[in-house]
Amino acid sequence: MNGSGWVYCASCPLWVKKREEELDTGLVHIPFDRPTRTARQTFDWAYENAIHADQSGMTEMMIAEHATQAWECIPNPELVIAAAARDTERIKFAPMAHLLPYHNPASLAIQVGWLSRILEGRYFLGIGAGAYPNDAILRGIPADLSENAGRVRESFEIMRKVWERKPFHYEGKYFTGGFPEEETDVKYEGDEQHKIADHSPWGGKIDIAVTGLSKNSQSMQFAGENGFMPVSIFSGSSILKAHWETYEKAALANGHVPDRSRHHVSQTIMVADTDAEAKKRALEGGIGYAFQHYLWPIWERFDMIQGFVDDKGAHASDVNLEWICDNIWIVGSPETVARKLNDLFAFTGGWGTLQVEVHDYMDNPEPWFESLERLVKEVAPLVKLPSAAEAVSS
Amino acid sequence: MNGSGWVYCASCPLWVKKREEELDTGLVHIPFDRPTRTARQTFDWAYENAIHADQSGMTEMMIAEHATQAWECIPNPELVIAAAARDTERIKFAPMAHLLPYHNPASLAIQVGWLSRILEGRYFLGIGAGAYPNDAILRGIPADLSENAGRVRESFEIMRKVWERKPFHYEGKYFTGGFPEEETDVKYEGDEQHKIADHSPWGGKIDIAVTGLSKNSQSMQFAGENGFMPVSIFSGSSILKAHWETYEKAALANGHVPDRSRHHVSQTIMVADTDAEAKKRALEGGIGYAFQHYLWPIWERFDMIQGFVDDKGAHASDVNLEWICDNIWIVGSPETVARKLNDLFAFTGGWGTLQVEVHDYMDNPEPWFESLERLVKEVAPLVKLPSAAEAVSS
Repeated sequence: MNGSGWVYCASCPLWVKKREEELDTGLVHIPFDRPTRTARQTFDWAYENAIHADQSGMTEMMIAEHATQAWECIPNPELVIAAAARDTERIKFAPMAHLLPYHNPASLAIQVGWLSRILEGRYFLGIGAGAYPNDAILRGIPADLSENAGRVRESFEIMRKVWERKPFHYEGKYFTGGFPEEETDVKYEGDEQHKIADHSPWGGKIDIAVTGLSKNSQSMQFAGENGFMPVSIFSGSSILKAHWETYEKAALANGHVPDRSRHHVSQTIMVADTDAEAKKRALEGGIGYAFQHYLWPIWERFDMIQGFVDDKGAHASDVNLEWICDNIWIVGSPETVARKLNDLFAFTGGWGTLQVEVHDYMDNPEPWFESLERLVKEVAPLVKLPSAAEAVSS
Repeated sequence: MNGSGWVYCASCPLWVKKREEELDTGLVHIPFDRPTRTARQTFDWAYENAIHADQSGMTEMMIAEHATQAWECIPNPELVIAAAARDTERIKFAPMAHLLPYHNPASLAIQVGWLSRILEGRYFLGIGAGAYPNDAILRGIPADLSENAGRVRESFEIMRKVWERKPFHYEGKYFTGGFPEEETDVKYEGDEQHKIADHSPWGGKIDIAVTGLSKNSQSMQFAGENGFMPVSIFSGSSILKAHWETYEKAALANGHVPDRSRHHVSQTIMVADTDAEAKKRALEGGIGYAFQHYLWPIWERFDMIQGFVDDKGAHASDVNLEWICDNIWIVGSPETVARKLNDLFAFTGGWGTLQVEVHDYMDNPEPWFESLERLVKEVAPLVKLPSAAEAVSS
């Protein structure tokens, strides 16, 4: 969705009204692959989802970075993005997110810039601080993550300066960085050995995105303050509503225009012919398995289940897999899924891009890809966008 | 080439005699692309060379890492390797080399392990300290590279420990690293949220390679001491001979068997129907352009031209592009190229894999790919291997 309904067509070249005002859709790939999968299976499944997203009319694919979780087992989203770069044409990719405390900032800045150029702009950058103690322990830094926020600040400052390509030298508490000055002392005519590469981001700038998860999300505050793209991992309707309110307030206070079309929201989704068939495919397939073995336990660990329970006026003791399916996931026929999304849009004010959380349907991919296809082709046209619904924020 | 002539066939599964004892060939991609190429062109050319190498019967492709050179402009070899992983079946890939001072060691260890698993073992790892001051300035560390050797030592120690997957915490002068202990306090039956991913290298071990360039190569000494794979960037026959001697001596002194079949040597090569046609394609194509604008000047800068001049009993003033073509590159008909290689083999004692330095023939790739194809199919069978030639070392 484009907020104004107008898009710039590079071929015309003119500002043209979009043919259809529809909800944009994309994938967010954490991934939730079973730990028994090989690295190659994980890599291939990510690639196949990228190809399908591109061909079915989705607009984006986000891929997360985690180095130590057996579930959530892609340590390098950039490798998947590179693998899919040549075989996709439309979708934008984003590492969502590169965890800045865990990389050499200048090296990461160069990698990000080069990959955005390889994709000729089909790229934006998610940045994060990291949430798993084991990821910090791996890098030999405090497991209480007390250094991570400071590391993000320093790293991002270095990255921005590297992208400017002007000489500097920076020595921080955690990181150092710099940019060299191009030599001018050329010994030979035509000698180019002194020339410095330009690996700054495609088009000279890069969209930055930040993920929010919890109720009082510092990330949403940070995104609003800096005019970054807000990405909400769905943790309940009220929390989602609060995300936008936090973002909007922080954006306005800092001179940025809060644009709902930039808000990305993730969901667990399964679309099939009938409600019963969709529920079966969700509960008995990769979605059910992942919640049973990983997501439900980890939601408990991070105290995330409460947001959903509060939403429904339920009790913690009500929660079982079927309750989760009926109350948290968005599962059903195209009409049911559209209705559930419209309810959410009416309650929260709506958003721009719906990110489907990818699940492990490697053993039988057809129901999964059918669901994505029907979401794009049948559900998205039925979702009433904020302007049409005349939703107002806060 | 396999030293013993026996290889393990996983399909049989048996140890079988290789059908032909032939020189192995591969690519080394620095790359020498013109700075006017876009990142996408650079990426695509690297990919296309990988596919061609795989299909033509080559055994390896090495890709270098440089963050600041406008020539030598691939900052992330792993992105090219990932892009070619699914579309190749036989060749092994190596970053040649990852520059250890410039990465978070634990993050790099995980990336290397994961990529080696994606390639199901078709991977080995080149490690290096870096030679360009600008690459150090970018990371805010001394441009005289005085820290780089110490950073390599610390980084590699952390990487090895990460691959062992046992809990540790390391705080060095330059880097920190560690490995977490898996939690055992599981709240739910089937709960897998605590499980730690295994991104250690495929098969539990990884081949390490080191590149040598100069006459008194510390890298060859280091490779020999540790039993690593020696890779020589060709800088003249005498230097090449010295590389092996240094390696062999250091290997023997440290209890490693120096195996000539593991020695990799790079060359600038152009094969065509006739000597005249090959010379034209080299001088007027990407090879000539790269030497005129980049390699000749940079050889002067690093004082590398002397090795070649000494080889031929020539004078520095003799050097021009045609002299370089006739005396340094290996250019000609298949018979001429084989003869030149056999002369080098006789003088140096030979080696295992011939790495062709990739040049920029993007505008007209046919002569380039024809040359590679003829090298594999017509030249390699004519090269007398060390055992056949009864070459003895030193």
